[in-house]
Amino acid sequence: MLKKGERIDQLYAQDVQIIQSSEVFSFSLDAVLLANFPRIPKRGKIIDLCAGNGAVGLFISKQTDASIDQIELQPRLADMGKRSIELNHLTNQIQMHEMDLKQIFPTFKTDNTDLVVCNPPYFKEQPNGQKNPNPYLAAARHEIHATLEDVVSTSSKLLKTNGHFAMVHRPDRFLEIIDCLRSWRIAPKRIQFVYPKQEKEANILLIEGIKYGKDEGLRFLPPLFTYDSQGQYTPAIKEMLYGK
Amino acid sequence: MLKKGERIDQLYAQDVQIIQSSEVFSFSLDAVLLANFPRIPKRGKIIDLCAGNGAVGLFISKQTDASIDQIELQPRLADMGKRSIELNHLTNQIQMHEMDLKQIFPTFKTDNTDLVVCNPPYFKEQPNGQKNPNPYLAAARHEIHATLEDVVSTSSKLLKTNGHFAMVHRPDRFLEIIDCLRSWRIAPKRIQFVYPKQEKEANILLIEGIKYGKDEGLRFLPPLFTYDSQGQYTPAIKEMLYGK
Repeated sequence: MLKKGERIDQLYAQDVQIIQSSEVFSFSLDAVLLANFPRIPKRGKIIDLCAGNGAVGLFISKQTDASIDQIELQPRLADMGKRSIELNHLTNQIQMHEMDLKQIFPTFKTDNTDLVVCNPPYFKEQPNGQKNPNPYLAAARHEIHATLEDVVSTSSKLLKTNGHFAMVHRPDRFLEIIDCLRSWRIAPKRIQFVYPKQEKEANILLIEGIKYGKDEGLRFLPPLFTYDSQGQYTPAIKEMLYGK
Repeated sequence: MLKKGERIDQLYAQDVQIIQSSEVFSFSLDAVLLANFPRIPKRGKIIDLCAGNGAVGLFISKQTDASIDQIELQPRLADMGKRSIELNHLTNQIQMHEMDLKQIFPTFKTDNTDLVVCNPPYFKEQPNGQKNPNPYLAAARHEIHATLEDVVSTSSKLLKTNGHFAMVHRPDRFLEIIDCLRSWRIAPKRIQFVYPKQEKEANILLIEGIKYGKDEGLRFLPPLFTYDSQGQYTPAIKEMLYGK
């Protein structure tokens, strides 16, 4: 089942096993945070854009009977994700699609999804900017194949009215994210900042919006801290990783 | 020096005395948070809009040689503020103006201020909405005499290019605040959320922007918590109130 350079990692909190490869892609804490952030519908349709090796979909599968479709452009990652679905005996619930999210219509229907989750590339693609020399990691981190606007526009089209969109991103792109969501008629509703530790500025943004929602009632959830003063994961993060 | 119903309160951290009246107005923790939030210019001109009894200007006076002009519409509050300035021997630095902030031009010059601070009314004025029956408190809390747009437009006109605007407000009006600042060409730069305690949603927003600033580089400062799990002020808040 494993190919060269691959290993199986476990997310204990969800009793999920994930095929990873340090050369190609391993899920990060951001994926765990995203999976724990939105209100997950009990049934219906969930789509994970920029799915990578499928970590987010695997993590949320235990909380719902909804079908989960994962969209990933990179063949190596989509292939790992397909094998992880089999490994976890989730082929009835989760399906990995090796597709470009800009070309998923009409394969996927518009106005048909209850929740879209996305852990997109965080960094703008700049012609002369520094990028990871590893093309797998570069594509996962930089907006080479999909921009913020691509992700949000696709999500908005996928969602039903009142469907939810949840994304993890970087706080320094906050205004652009807010503008983009609102221009695609997704009203920001819940925001949570993650701080590396006390006394530090936020380094992760979690944001959830509602398609065609009203532009009021925005809530800022209790802050999360990744590490305590000893450099250990905080109890909230430990619970996400290892369970109660 | 005191009139009927008035008392003198002390802010120990700044060694400042303030004339207050529970019937008319007393400064809140929000004023203390605002005074501790922005980067205070060492000299130049500072204006405090919606100054109330002048608490914010008194608190920041110790940190700067800048002149501080306070604008307050309500005669009773402006009168208390004037006497507090005298009480603290700050008549050379601080001046209280009983004025409507919508009518301060040309008495005040445009493009001439280094920092505008504001603790405005938080609640929208609604024709049939519930308001405090005390007209002093109603005017301080509801947008009866000045709206968010009045405050931000006046601030933008007052500020020099690259001048700073700092405001305390409520997180549920966040999107409106962001929109209003940007429409008046004040770029949000620093945001801090205050949470009543751990595990609770934010209930106070501190926001600082720069006139004609670029729309990037927004930072989310470490969160503040008002109370600890025992219901006592946290060390950060105690330091603002009582000093180190």
